[in-house]
Amino acid sequence: MATKQPVLGLDIGGTKLAVAMVTPDGRTHGFLSEPTEKQLGPDAIIAHLFDMGRRSIAASGLGEPGAVGISCGGPLDVAAGILTGPLHLPGWIDVPIVAMATEAFGVPAVVENDATSAVLGEYRFGAARGADIALYLTLSTGVGGGSIIDGRLHRGAAGNGGEFGHVLVRPGGRLCQCGRYGCLEAYASGTNIAARAIELLTETDRPSSLREVPVVRGEHVSAAAAAGDLLATELWNDTMTLLGQAITDLVNVFEPNVVVLGGGVTRSGSLLLDPVREMVRTRAMPPAAAHAVVTLAGLGDAVCVVGAGALALALMETVHV
Amino acid sequence: MATKQPVLGLDIGGTKLAVAMVTPDGRTHGFLSEPTEKQLGPDAIIAHLFDMGRRSIAASGLGEPGAVGISCGGPLDVAAGILTGPLHLPGWIDVPIVAMATEAFGVPAVVENDATSAVLGEYRFGAARGADIALYLTLSTGVGGGSIIDGRLHRGAAGNGGEFGHVLVRPGGRLCQCGRYGCLEAYASGTNIAARAIELLTETDRPSSLREVPVVRGEHVSAAAAAGDLLATELWNDTMTLLGQAITDLVNVFEPNVVVLGGGVTRSGSLLLDPVREMVRTRAMPPAAAHAVVTLAGLGDAVCVVGAGALALALMETVHV
Repeated sequence: MATKQPVLGLDIGGTKLAVAMVTPDGRTHGFLSEPTEKQLGPDAIIAHLFDMGRRSIAASGLGEPGAVGISCGGPLDVAAGILTGPLHLPGWIDVPIVAMATEAFGVPAVVENDATSAVLGEYRFGAARGADIALYLTLSTGVGGGSIIDGRLHRGAAGNGGEFGHVLVRPGGRLCQCGRYGCLEAYASGTNIAARAIELLTETDRPSSLREVPVVRGEHVSAAAAAGDLLATELWNDTMTLLGQAITDLVNVFEPNVVVLGGGVTRSGSLLLDPVREMVRTRAMPPAAAHAVVTLAGLGDAVCVVGAGALALALMETVHV
Repeated sequence: MATKQPVLGLDIGGTKLAVAMVTPDGRTHGFLSEPTEKQLGPDAIIAHLFDMGRRSIAASGLGEPGAVGISCGGPLDVAAGILTGPLHLPGWIDVPIVAMATEAFGVPAVVENDATSAVLGEYRFGAARGADIALYLTLSTGVGGGSIIDGRLHRGAAGNGGEFGHVLVRPGGRLCQCGRYGCLEAYASGTNIAARAIELLTETDRPSSLREVPVVRGEHVSAAAAAGDLLATELWNDTMTLLGQAITDLVNVFEPNVVVLGGGVTRSGSLLLDPVREMVRTRAMPPAAAHAVVTLAGLGDAVCVVGAGALALALMETVHV
């Protein structure tokens, strides 16, 4: 049964926390985004997140939510409602987030991998509407993935719905947080784009406008590349080659209708989209390439919150049947 | 509606043609396997295949089949029933195989990618029974893939159901038939295992028992590796590293319950299975690794024929409803 009651969406990112009330049309109300102060540890951060939730409920003027949806990076245990050890939040071991949210808000709650939430959000309300097979990659603090297969959310046997950040793109390359050498995440996350730039700046004498930046982040690298900085351009082009390579693999493997790219790194827009599209077009198997549209997330910064809301809406529909 | 009538399964491989009558319990009757004489071209080979089909029908003593299922390597157009340009059969362009089979046998026919057929066969009758998410890789003349997602055949937007042979394993490496450099298929197909061995034998003076073999095939390499030949062992180990790497990627990306390996190369048994299992266990994301069983095909050499039969059985169930 479709619900008319709004829900609360919570997203626990490695860099920021985001919350909003989400109405059944997919719109956000009382959207808030605040930094994740990692050094405070899970208890304080979750207290902060729930406080943001209460402020969002109040600001929305929509009354109480019917359910709470939570999105967070994996690994997590969806069935048990536990964050087992998210890679982007070191030290968060077996956090019973669903039980905590249920107690805090007095309504049913659900948790999903953030990219799984995001693909659901994009499928119901964003750039993947109408796509039978949709892949979503988030390029953020880490690199995550989610998929819709034949119109249904693909959760995977392990409940993380596909770890697209952990496709090997440079065998024997950079050490990834997962322990493998050369995963996509070790190159294409905002964190690692910045880390590689800092390595180049400290290990060489090469000139670069990035030397003027006190703390280099991923967006500085894309901005410097867009402005023609040689070091930044080389790094960006290499990153796009590896990203395009991984997305070509995914297109070959899933044969999707659409690949949606979201997360902070994609704010670089066509600087990212153009080379990735070109590689998929020319390198993927021709039938797969002909069907796969590569595009940016339609829900922008709110994608995970809307996705978390879509999860909560689905939960209410189930609970209320 | 379940059918009791047998069907005819036809498999068009790059090395051999295989046919059998398949009963609804998944058993084969009148199984035949004969070489694919590639130099004769599509018309003569298809005439030979259909003749094998008629001999199999007669040998089975089961009477006429209710439908014909055909499995062939991609790319192909499932909806139109056309082999658009199978990579393992150069020169086969837009062959209307379904129309040809319908005319030849006077019953409905269906075609699928060979690995898609195989995963259906393994899911209904073999090593993937009961697995919600099952991946199948065939390591044969080429390397193909198929998947069952949440109990349903994943056909993909392009109808090839996933091209697992075209995951990049050594960027910038060997030229693959698909035009990309460094795909799994360029290393782990029987054809390419043999080609690499021949390259090593001709380009170096290294001693090897393979020098005694007039025409080196993939099985000679695995046999020589099993016997301790140093050159063959190095080549085999490198191949297993790349295969394990690709399967680790697939385990991360799909989070399957089971990965089934079939095709001629897997006749090497534990020489192949052990290193691949070890790599998945130690390198895949821990939750995905904990759920993924890696195993050999349960249907052996008949996997594609049984899969083609399973397709034909499904077609009859649809047609007869």
